[in-house]
Amino acid sequence: MTENRSVPAAARAAREASRALGALSAETRNLALLAMAGAVNRRRDEILAENRKDVDAADALIEEGKLTGAAAKRLQLGGGKIDGVIESLRSVAALPDPLGEIQMAMELDTGLHLYRVSCPIGAIAMIFESRPDALPQIASLCLKSGNAVLLKGGSEALNSNRALARVLNEAVRSVRGIPPGWMTLLETREEIAEILKLDEYIDLIIPRGSNEFVRYIMDNTKIPVTGHRDGICHTYVHAAADPEKAVRIVVDGKTQYPAVCNATETLLIDRAAAATLLPAIANALKEKDVALRLDEQARAILPDYPDASPADEETWSTEHLDLILGVRVVKGIDQAIDHVNRYGSHHTDAIVTEDARAAARFMSRVDSASVIHNASTRFSDGYRYGLGAEVGISTEKIHSRGPVGLEGLTIYKYLLQGSGQIVADYSGPNARKFIHRPLPVSGS
Amino acid sequence: MTENRSVPAAARAAREASRALGALSAETRNLALLAMAGAVNRRRDEILAENRKDVDAADALIEEGKLTGAAAKRLQLGGGKIDGVIESLRSVAALPDPLGEIQMAMELDTGLHLYRVSCPIGAIAMIFESRPDALPQIASLCLKSGNAVLLKGGSEALNSNRALARVLNEAVRSVRGIPPGWMTLLETREEIAEILKLDEYIDLIIPRGSNEFVRYIMDNTKIPVTGHRDGICHTYVHAAADPEKAVRIVVDGKTQYPAVCNATETLLIDRAAAATLLPAIANALKEKDVALRLDEQARAILPDYPDASPADEETWSTEHLDLILGVRVVKGIDQAIDHVNRYGSHHTDAIVTEDARAAARFMSRVDSASVIHNASTRFSDGYRYGLGAEVGISTEKIHSRGPVGLEGLTIYKYLLQGSGQIVADYSGPNARKFIHRPLPVSGS
Repeated sequence: MTENRSVPAAARAAREASRALGALSAETRNLALLAMAGAVNRRRDEILAENRKDVDAADALIEEGKLTGAAAKRLQLGGGKIDGVIESLRSVAALPDPLGEIQMAMELDTGLHLYRVSCPIGAIAMIFESRPDALPQIASLCLKSGNAVLLKGGSEALNSNRALARVLNEAVRSVRGIPPGWMTLLETREEIAEILKLDEYIDLIIPRGSNEFVRYIMDNTKIPVTGHRDGICHTYVHAAADPEKAVRIVVDGKTQYPAVCNATETLLIDRAAAATLLPAIANALKEKDVALRLDEQARAILPDYPDASPADEETWSTEHLDLILGVRVVKGIDQAIDHVNRYGSHHTDAIVTEDARAAARFMSRVDSASVIHNASTRFSDGYRYGLGAEVGISTEKIHSRGPVGLEGLTIYKYLLQGSGQIVADYSGPNARKFIHRPLPVSGS
Repeated sequence: MTENRSVPAAARAAREASRALGALSAETRNLALLAMAGAVNRRRDEILAENRKDVDAADALIEEGKLTGAAAKRLQLGGGKIDGVIESLRSVAALPDPLGEIQMAMELDTGLHLYRVSCPIGAIAMIFESRPDALPQIASLCLKSGNAVLLKGGSEALNSNRALARVLNEAVRSVRGIPPGWMTLLETREEIAEILKLDEYIDLIIPRGSNEFVRYIMDNTKIPVTGHRDGICHTYVHAAADPEKAVRIVVDGKTQYPAVCNATETLLIDRAAAATLLPAIANALKEKDVALRLDEQARAILPDYPDASPADEETWSTEHLDLILGVRVVKGIDQAIDHVNRYGSHHTDAIVTEDARAAARFMSRVDSASVIHNASTRFSDGYRYGLGAEVGISTEKIHSRGPVGLEGLTIYKYLLQGSGQIVADYSGPNARKFIHRPLPVSGS
């Protein structure tokens, strides 16, 4: 850590800070976010000079063949990227307040009113990839939602992250009420290992990164983890698919950005449609240099596809993240649904059909965070879904599922407002009866 | 297990059953619940005969001093209790459907609509105490919410649980669509140990029972656990408390039912009010034979309380579940809040005051599932909160917090309804713009 504190001390400070953060007004939290934006703007030279060190070190690694050019490019804050950071901080300030939302209100009895109100989770540990612009984004989302945060970025971005954390921390000192300990930068893997043991202080861990890394986190902590594992997504072309839509949606799902988790990895196509539709789809994929892994029936239909090899059992459970597509001909919708639920990662799956009943069946029976009818799997992310800001994408089945916005950083508490009521009056032979009348919830 | 199946096979069957359950109509699920109620009614003699075996065995244990009379009484299904079971099954059928609720709807673009819809979690393992009437309650809540369930009850109720599981399972066979595997009764501790390893099939574990048991579950599984740990609840009497309310609320919180988690374990009282108010509260507690653990200042005010001993550090973190109350005199509201957040279990805490600003400060800064103003801590449970049915009480900070109703057994999925849209059209220099217009959500 930058500060001279032990990890448990930082975690305890985060826990204490979280109590104060949750009680701050939206105005104070937004003021702090704007102060952060202003400070990054004023101190951009200082930040960019530190970022230059990381970029230069990365360039040396590229020459040694130890880093890809794409990875190095993600490190850069120059070339206008820092303006994006400032803009993003301002836009988080402008988002609606996720706290204090009355989710439910009920009159239990005269003068005894129950409210369920959104509130912060508490202290959150976030572990993210090399991009240094992730640091202000995550810090701002946590502050907006009243959570204290322990952050660990990629080691290649350490100088950039230190500079950003320093500037953000100093910026909020001018804002009355933001507690020290609201954000702490962790710097080493050993510190992560320590964090995993601190279930006493940390309420939630959100790791972003490789599948292996997320699994490591999950396997080594008792703290709840909202993690994103594989994205093995399917596009299923039903017998009643519109041919033009089918071609466009499959090509987009596979090729528009193949390196991401919502790209299509497997094409399922109905036997009834395969003979006519599969050649048209294959022609379009050929133009994008997509390699195919074909099951037996698909091979029979596409004997001359230039870059094809036989699919095997492993094909269906592989996240290629590349211009490679598995193709399986299925008997019909139920085999397609079974395949998706069995081999998929419950992330995002699409059906292409003009048959509304088939679409409804697929959408209700496919057990995935996002199920899509007649559009590309690539649509499933927080920005396109209009969530305002994306904390991450969850493949969990409790709390948050799919693209996670600010709401995923909140929980609720029950507030009961009485006027002297005791439970003894509501029990026994002459018990008072509860009214349990829902009250209108304003502002939603 | 009653069936000749391995635990992994039962868990896999539950996973498969969950796919089908989630797609059933509310009518089918409610029909199954009513069939269950009818079968328990018709076959009550058979169930009561099996229950008799458990009760007789318990009576023998009482004579040997190995079981308390209270525990044995909880085993009984006779004496009208089975009518309560039937009534409860019918009332779950009558509850609103927790599935298919549209939580959010947004027009991303013309002809591209996003919906967030509630759906089942999947396969749930529930482990509960000896009361055999918990079995039909839990099974019915899971079926209502479209989840498959693996159930483990107390071993003292094994004959009763076997009979109930058999009757419920046979009842739903008459209802088309309920998949085999929707409910499996586990019978041994070894089977629980196996379940804990099956994160491949099980989505959530809900244990009810002792703190030690819930901790054991949490420490030995990667599956998310919605558990209820300690209930160390406080009542804080503020300087501006109404004296009569203070006496009533403290006495009710401590004595109305001391053996439960929402009973008050510690009284905090402002120094400014202690000299006049503490003697009045103590007088009322004396009549109920409450033993006090007093801090130094409280001892000075109550030198003659008959059953008093000095409080120590351990007093504040003990869940007495008995007629014992810790008493601490505090300097003011901030010390009270610090005490609650430090020693409490984040379950339920109350403030007694006529000062609205003090109440607001306490309610926003106390980090507990339920925070109560001018009413007894004993109010915090699912029935009194009007949740319809209580799955359990959670001390977790993600997914579900406090009393958990049917909603705690659900999650959501995103359904995207398009008309051929692809992401390529929304990127690059001539990108289409998203509209992101919220659509009215009906029926909420």
